[in-house]
Amino acid sequence: MIVRHFSEITNQAVETDDAVAVTIRWLIGKDNTDALFYMRQLEIAPDGHTPYHRHGGGHQVYILQGEGRLRTETGYIPLSPGTFAQVLPEDMHSFENTGATPFRFLCLIPRD
Amino acid sequence: MIVRHFSEITNQAVETDDAVAVTIRWLIGKDNTDALFYMRQLEIAPDGHTPYHRHGGGHQVYILQGEGRLRTETGYIPLSPGTFAQVLPEDMHSFENTGATPFRFLCLIPRD
Repeated sequence: MIVRHFSEITNQAVETDDAVAVTIRWLIGKDNTDALFYMRQLEIAPDGHTPYHRHGGGHQVYILQGEGRLRTETGYIPLSPGTFAQVLPEDMHSFENTGATPFRFLCLIPRD
Repeated sequence: MIVRHFSEITNQAVETDDAVAVTIRWLIGKDNTDALFYMRQLEIAPDGHTPYHRHGGGHQVYILQGEGRLRTETGYIPLSPGTFAQVLPEDMHSFENTGATPFRFLCLIPRD
């Protein structure tokens, strides 16, 4: 049983090409051998965004705070607290902050 | 790509023995064949709690709203928004609302 608050977890800059003003906390990550899957909390500052990219693993996302949008190949989808999303493998996607406050969400991915 | 708000999902009573004032929304569930894992949002009314039980599958939990506590075999652990938890398989556990407002959290479980 592990119980912690996200604020106890180091907030790391995401330094991937084309990530702008994005930080990540690995709440349940690779150092946790009991992880069913990985739980990350991302934060995007105003005017920031994650890379517009695709990859093999999917995402399951839940918006916690702020206002944003999801860029897809067919347009933009608004995101606000309580919105959840399933990004399938190889779907092009980027998360963008469209508000004036931090945009925060959970992003869950399969192990490895 | 699926993007929806939790309020679009039916809120169902949890009728398991010993569940008190608990409802659940299956945000990403068994009808979703692309699910990496299942994402459920639970809500416990004031004075309610989930069953105090154990089972084979683990949980990964993230607290969204309200105040509660996690009952374990070694005592109670306070829970507030931004707290995350990993309940291992066969850990005894119950989530309880200790506040005056709804206690809401995400509970992620493996497929099947």
